[in-house]
Amino acid sequence: MIVNVRKEFRKLVTMDEAKKIIERLDILPGTDEVSIEDARGRVLAEDIISEVDVPPFSRASMDGYAVHAADTYPAREDKPVHLRRVASIPAGINPDIHIERGEAAEIATGAVMPAGADAVVMVEYTGLDSDLCILRPVSINENVMHAGSDIMVGERVLRKGTHLGARETGVLAATGRRAVRVYALRVCIISTGNELAEPGHALEPGKIYDINSFSIASAVKECGGTPLRYGLIRDDEAEIRDALKKAAEDCDIILTSGSTSAGSGDVMYRLIEQDGTVLVHGIDIKPGKPAIIGKVFGKPVLGLPGYPASSLTIFNEFAAPLIRRLTGRKEERQKASAKMAVRVRSEGRSQLLPVGLVRGLAYPVEKGSGAITTLSEADGFIEIPSDVEIIEAGETVEVTLFGEVETPDLLFVGSHCLGLDTLADVSKLRMRVMNVGSSGGLSAIRSGTAGIAGVHLLDESGEYNIPFLKRFGIKNAVIVKGYLREQGLMVRKDSKIKGLEDIVNARVINRNTGSGTRVLTDMKLREIAARRGIPFGELTGSISGYNTEAKTHSAVASAVRLGKADAGVGIRTVAEMNGLTFIKIADEEYDFVVPLHLLESRELKRLIESLRSQEFGERLPSGLKTYKRTGEIVRIPQ
Amino acid sequence: MIVNVRKEFRKLVTMDEAKKIIERLDILPGTDEVSIEDARGRVLAEDIISEVDVPPFSRASMDGYAVHAADTYPAREDKPVHLRRVASIPAGINPDIHIERGEAAEIATGAVMPAGADAVVMVEYTGLDSDLCILRPVSINENVMHAGSDIMVGERVLRKGTHLGARETGVLAATGRRAVRVYALRVCIISTGNELAEPGHALEPGKIYDINSFSIASAVKECGGTPLRYGLIRDDEAEIRDALKKAAEDCDIILTSGSTSAGSGDVMYRLIEQDGTVLVHGIDIKPGKPAIIGKVFGKPVLGLPGYPASSLTIFNEFAAPLIRRLTGRKEERQKASAKMAVRVRSEGRSQLLPVGLVRGLAYPVEKGSGAITTLSEADGFIEIPSDVEIIEAGETVEVTLFGEVETPDLLFVGSHCLGLDTLADVSKLRMRVMNVGSSGGLSAIRSGTAGIAGVHLLDESGEYNIPFLKRFGIKNAVIVKGYLREQGLMVRKDSKIKGLEDIVNARVINRNTGSGTRVLTDMKLREIAARRGIPFGELTGSISGYNTEAKTHSAVASAVRLGKADAGVGIRTVAEMNGLTFIKIADEEYDFVVPLHLLESRELKRLIESLRSQEFGERLPSGLKTYKRTGEIVRIPQ
Repeated sequence: MIVNVRKEFRKLVTMDEAKKIIERLDILPGTDEVSIEDARGRVLAEDIISEVDVPPFSRASMDGYAVHAADTYPAREDKPVHLRRVASIPAGINPDIHIERGEAAEIATGAVMPAGADAVVMVEYTGLDSDLCILRPVSINENVMHAGSDIMVGERVLRKGTHLGARETGVLAATGRRAVRVYALRVCIISTGNELAEPGHALEPGKIYDINSFSIASAVKECGGTPLRYGLIRDDEAEIRDALKKAAEDCDIILTSGSTSAGSGDVMYRLIEQDGTVLVHGIDIKPGKPAIIGKVFGKPVLGLPGYPASSLTIFNEFAAPLIRRLTGRKEERQKASAKMAVRVRSEGRSQLLPVGLVRGLAYPVEKGSGAITTLSEADGFIEIPSDVEIIEAGETVEVTLFGEVETPDLLFVGSHCLGLDTLADVSKLRMRVMNVGSSGGLSAIRSGTAGIAGVHLLDESGEYNIPFLKRFGIKNAVIVKGYLREQGLMVRKDSKIKGLEDIVNARVINRNTGSGTRVLTDMKLREIAARRGIPFGELTGSISGYNTEAKTHSAVASAVRLGKADAGVGIRTVAEMNGLTFIKIADEEYDFVVPLHLLESRELKRLIESLRSQEFGERLPSGLKTYKRTGEIVRIPQ
Repeated sequence: MIVNVRKEFRKLVTMDEAKKIIERLDILPGTDEVSIEDARGRVLAEDIISEVDVPPFSRASMDGYAVHAADTYPAREDKPVHLRRVASIPAGINPDIHIERGEAAEIATGAVMPAGADAVVMVEYTGLDSDLCILRPVSINENVMHAGSDIMVGERVLRKGTHLGARETGVLAATGRRAVRVYALRVCIISTGNELAEPGHALEPGKIYDINSFSIASAVKECGGTPLRYGLIRDDEAEIRDALKKAAEDCDIILTSGSTSAGSGDVMYRLIEQDGTVLVHGIDIKPGKPAIIGKVFGKPVLGLPGYPASSLTIFNEFAAPLIRRLTGRKEERQKASAKMAVRVRSEGRSQLLPVGLVRGLAYPVEKGSGAITTLSEADGFIEIPSDVEIIEAGETVEVTLFGEVETPDLLFVGSHCLGLDTLADVSKLRMRVMNVGSSGGLSAIRSGTAGIAGVHLLDESGEYNIPFLKRFGIKNAVIVKGYLREQGLMVRKDSKIKGLEDIVNARVINRNTGSGTRVLTDMKLREIAARRGIPFGELTGSISGYNTEAKTHSAVASAVRLGKADAGVGIRTVAEMNGLTFIKIADEEYDFVVPLHLLESRELKRLIESLRSQEFGERLPSGLKTYKRTGEIVRIPQ
């Protein structure tokens, strides 16, 4: 017997070693010439030496009269000096005149000082009769701004490495520069995988949309790099090799995503080794094990893991500082201090653990590998060193942020429901929803996480939710009654199934044991079995696929829509979205489990107020409705 | 006699009133559809409802074998369960098979689960002989990720108002969205003035480059708006009216710069009044007096002052929060706390005073009106209320930042010299240079500002700089000797002037009284007068234009180059840059006056080390050189 162990064993490097190796990669960023209109946020790759004086000529800084200052010395309000008006000089022209003693030229702010004149009398201190009357004396240079007094020809006005913002753009315009050279680091991003498809097109069966080349491209831009996305590359050695070769010609750094794990046959590793050097093959940190650092076709290459959150985490930790440094940006990343919401046990090796931030608390976001929602629920990550076994709830941790963070007001951990979106809209609360199912939500409440659980669990007694608090050992929480959701059979439009009785002869896809829907289905079938006088097990045993377990309403609907099953039980909303016929069985109660410490919060008060509002009832989508208990607070006797 | 009082008297509104009026402007931002590649930094103008399940099908989350879980229950390492291998399912295809009891299909991570199978056995727990051997049992759903378990069809994945970064881009891609609707606030910027020219082209005489439409456009982008620059508009009523009309059609807000002051005949005010409403005509805060708030051709319009720093300050205070709010960005502006470096006396009305920040100290940047360098030297502004007369040195002030601030290591306040750029390059210190002349630099040192003064003042005794510390009453400072600068006559290439003696018969442009250069010129002419046996006054009286005072070397060089004068005295560097012949008169000593509190700082040590380095001497531009005293510290006996 051959045992299928395809994993290769290799020497992992530590995080610090990996960072040092990246620092030593010999990368020269390129430069771009950009118009000053497009220069905002870029970093100058050249010194800017002014080729003009600013102002370019000596000019009047007030509206008034250009004069010989000496002529005005005797002037007083009651004994004005009289001067001959010989010209009027507007802004924007070059006056070809010479002002002699005893003469004056009317002059506008910003206009060129005429030869001879050495001062400007403000218009307020002049009067007119046949001649010009000067009412106050001026000294030499008064109200005159000299050529180059602001910026001189040859002066360095901006230095290489300067960040270009509004002010710098103004300075560039002032010296007549319309285009400047800025740092440009071209970063190629290659996503590999036969299953990948481009967003914006319908998915063929078996395909998923490519995520990483878009999220990483956005992160590259955030760091100041210029991303070049490569079309999707199949998991084919020749195709990947061609892409690497072309990328090496086009860019300064190559990032790849996918094809790095032992499971994929380590294609990327072998290709880089073949046409370059692998410097690092695996970093001793979760999720860096599949990461690669090397050079290929003469260009530095970083192989990122394929899972979106892992990919972005490894990018942030290893690639982002490099790209920032090479494009002249500050290397520091945004950090936030938070208290750990729950106790976290480490896995015995260094880990970059994704966390969400709510009300100053950090909670771990640990979804199944590859969940894209990890991205939307994690605000950053904490580093757990290999010698730390446990982080206690309440311990202060430093979170490296993924970017600008809009902290939510409330966190929902539980079963997802479209009604939550309506609730967010009506309450105007920023809500984050972590979709972990009803039981997951109750476990989270028990372990003290910072959220509210949305649950719809049916007890065999027929009571919803309330019995489960005791069953889960939850103290210090109350239930806030939510709304009703229509549960029923989902069947195809042309189906012959008209009610629960009919599924006995059909192929059925069921929900997982313990889900509220499954409990309801079992209960209703028990009634049917009782009516027919046969054991429950005999009835369900005759239903093809009754023990197939799908974890979501959506998986049930997909199976029915695609013809893999003839019927399933789920909520009306999902049935309608999938174009299926819905046959109502019962209304289930979707409720909120609220930790006591949130009960007096402004946010919860707003939530309950919104639940009870007429607007909320009216805006709920089809299949959901409020009832007399909506918004009621139920305290559980312990 | 008619007294020229053209200023109009009008009722100024307070800052708070102006802000309230702006808040009440009825502005609806538009939206743009952008590709997710270009969405970074934008704000969602729509809810994103997933139209697909993620994953779109139930898939294997490990490499292994898709099986009926029930078949594996008896499996043990020493008693494997044998299953028939019936297929191999790679990622990316739709398997058209049904797995029966006793069968298994090889399956790759991410591949579609075949019908029938309800779990995946990891490849590590399998072996091969003639059949497939299962070494460990799996439970139902193990290593399977269900359709929609990450994101369900119909689930709202991102909410209107969400800031789009790398994570959100990933979520959009995951749900197949390639384009999204984001807020777009089109902001037209109209710069008016006959003297304005476009950067990137040579300047005609009398023209200056337009600054505001570029700096304001950059600031608009910073706030999330979409700037539309209008070509330069002449100070002509019909032309401005046409521009306003077109802008009102194209955009959501109109910003104008220029033509708002009483001096310009208040053209903008009259035009807005004519085709709309003026809500505010002047804000009671320096520099907001010329500001206008109104509506024209149905669109909101903000008239900004014409001077670049004033324009950006008023933009930041009044327009930026509006644009941020309308594009869904956070309204808060970046603030920094600092200690005032010097005593500031207010002007009796509210003021937004531009300040620079160095080493935690804020110092006022008060240059002549309209200086563009105010922009590069100010990092933000402080608000001085009308009832505050004085801010003491050391008082804590809150600075509203103009943007991201790169705080300099050292501030130079004094006479500008190109050698400072060399010094910055060699020392790698981030230096900011405020060009206020030698005397200005000494005044700044005396008033305790946070900088080092660069000076080159000649005493009548022939000694440079040192005597001036006592004369300016400066204690607690030392001189660090700098380098030598060649001073001499600047004349046109074809000039007959070969030396100082010749300027007696020529037209001369002189530097201002008190400048080091003027003192040198006077001293040298005194020697000539003495040689010729005539009084000094008689000699200079015979020189045409000797009393014309230019404040900069550059103004002198311009006048000579343009033929307004035949000769002037200045430094070699400036002469060469202007293509003039240089006739050396003397070497002047350019020194640094350093406050004692900086003497032991790391930065000053690095500065002195650099001054003394061979590299510095070698890299100085033509006309500047180090000598034996360079880097010497001279303590002044009090």
